[in-house]
Amino acid sequence: MLSGRAAPEPTIARLALYLRCLLAAQQEGAETLSSADIEVRTSISSGQVRKDLSYFGEFGKPGLGYAVAPLASRLASIMRLDRTQPVMLVGAGNLGTAIAGYSGLRESGFHLVAVYDNNFSKIGRRIWDLEIQDIERMPAINAEMGVQIGIIATPAPAGQDVADRMVSSGVRVILNFSPTRLSVPKEVVVRNVDLTQELQILCYYLPATESVTP
Amino acid sequence: MLSGRAAPEPTIARLALYLRCLLAAQQEGAETLSSADIEVRTSISSGQVRKDLSYFGEFGKPGLGYAVAPLASRLASIMRLDRTQPVMLVGAGNLGTAIAGYSGLRESGFHLVAVYDNNFSKIGRRIWDLEIQDIERMPAINAEMGVQIGIIATPAPAGQDVADRMVSSGVRVILNFSPTRLSVPKEVVVRNVDLTQELQILCYYLPATESVTP
Repeated sequence: MLSGRAAPEPTIARLALYLRCLLAAQQEGAETLSSADIEVRTSISSGQVRKDLSYFGEFGKPGLGYAVAPLASRLASIMRLDRTQPVMLVGAGNLGTAIAGYSGLRESGFHLVAVYDNNFSKIGRRIWDLEIQDIERMPAINAEMGVQIGIIATPAPAGQDVADRMVSSGVRVILNFSPTRLSVPKEVVVRNVDLTQELQILCYYLPATESVTP
Repeated sequence: MLSGRAAPEPTIARLALYLRCLLAAQQEGAETLSSADIEVRTSISSGQVRKDLSYFGEFGKPGLGYAVAPLASRLASIMRLDRTQPVMLVGAGNLGTAIAGYSGLRESGFHLVAVYDNNFSKIGRRIWDLEIQDIERMPAINAEMGVQIGIIATPAPAGQDVADRMVSSGVRVILNFSPTRLSVPKEVVVRNVDLTQELQILCYYLPATESVTP
């Protein structure tokens, strides 16, 4: 049942949304949800819901729908969200401060345990409740901590160096906010959050009000 | 030639990467790039590159590759990135401050022209070079400015209200950093940047070192 390793990445992205929807339904006291109910709550079509969940086994019962609590706990287990996950952050600027202060992190089971920077004016200061550490100390600190999830919130030029340090310190998945494509070993997974790229994609969908010169 | 409206969303996302790659190549003085060259620079397979670009016409010449400058200017035109695009931001907290201070915005042709908040302790202050405006004034200010691109950098509970205000003020595309799913009219396009969801997706790819209780 704990298979589904072959599920495509967009399915994994939707699992996170299903889990959030199930946890909200659970809080409201719902015991079952149909795929149509999930569609209403997530805007993901009921057919897609059934297909996505079928990667991981037969959860639903025809005519009854999905049992909310068991499905939520199964999805959390599949996604390894049934435990607290320690996270490290590199970059203690405005973006890093916003990330470190984001309450949704802890509410979703992520525990920021280390913040690094290479700027001596920042090292030793506190960002919320954490002391900013010298990035040079990452290998030693992480040998103790064993953090496998890293967030990069540095300017673009530092991104690759930070990723290299993370990987050699034991990080296995990276959320990259620096606007640069990272090169990492194939066993390491990177997701990029690129503000400029997101805006560029959106621009494509702007209505054509002005004349467009070729 | 300026068609391609039917290109799927992942293709549009990759166009932004091709454009960035072409502009970098242009700066380096390259006159042509093959799809294999683009693969090396973007990690997108050469077959995918050819397929994506074919949505928008025949750009490449067999054996010669793509002419860098004309292709860059064509892609910029297709994506409406051949002009400066004004942007509004709602939410002047740490995240909003990070976004407003991000130099990549202006370098990519986005010009932040208005920042709004509903917090009276922030309204009237400056965030970088912009005065923070009362969100109640958005309709009046945007009737003058005509900004069509909005960025939401508020906590989750405010997200939908901000989106509604943006839409009724003329915004047509929204980049949403608030961790909430927005409901908008079908002619409005939203992209969500959800830190928690991104981390949850990454968790799925963590190596299975601990025993997993079902």
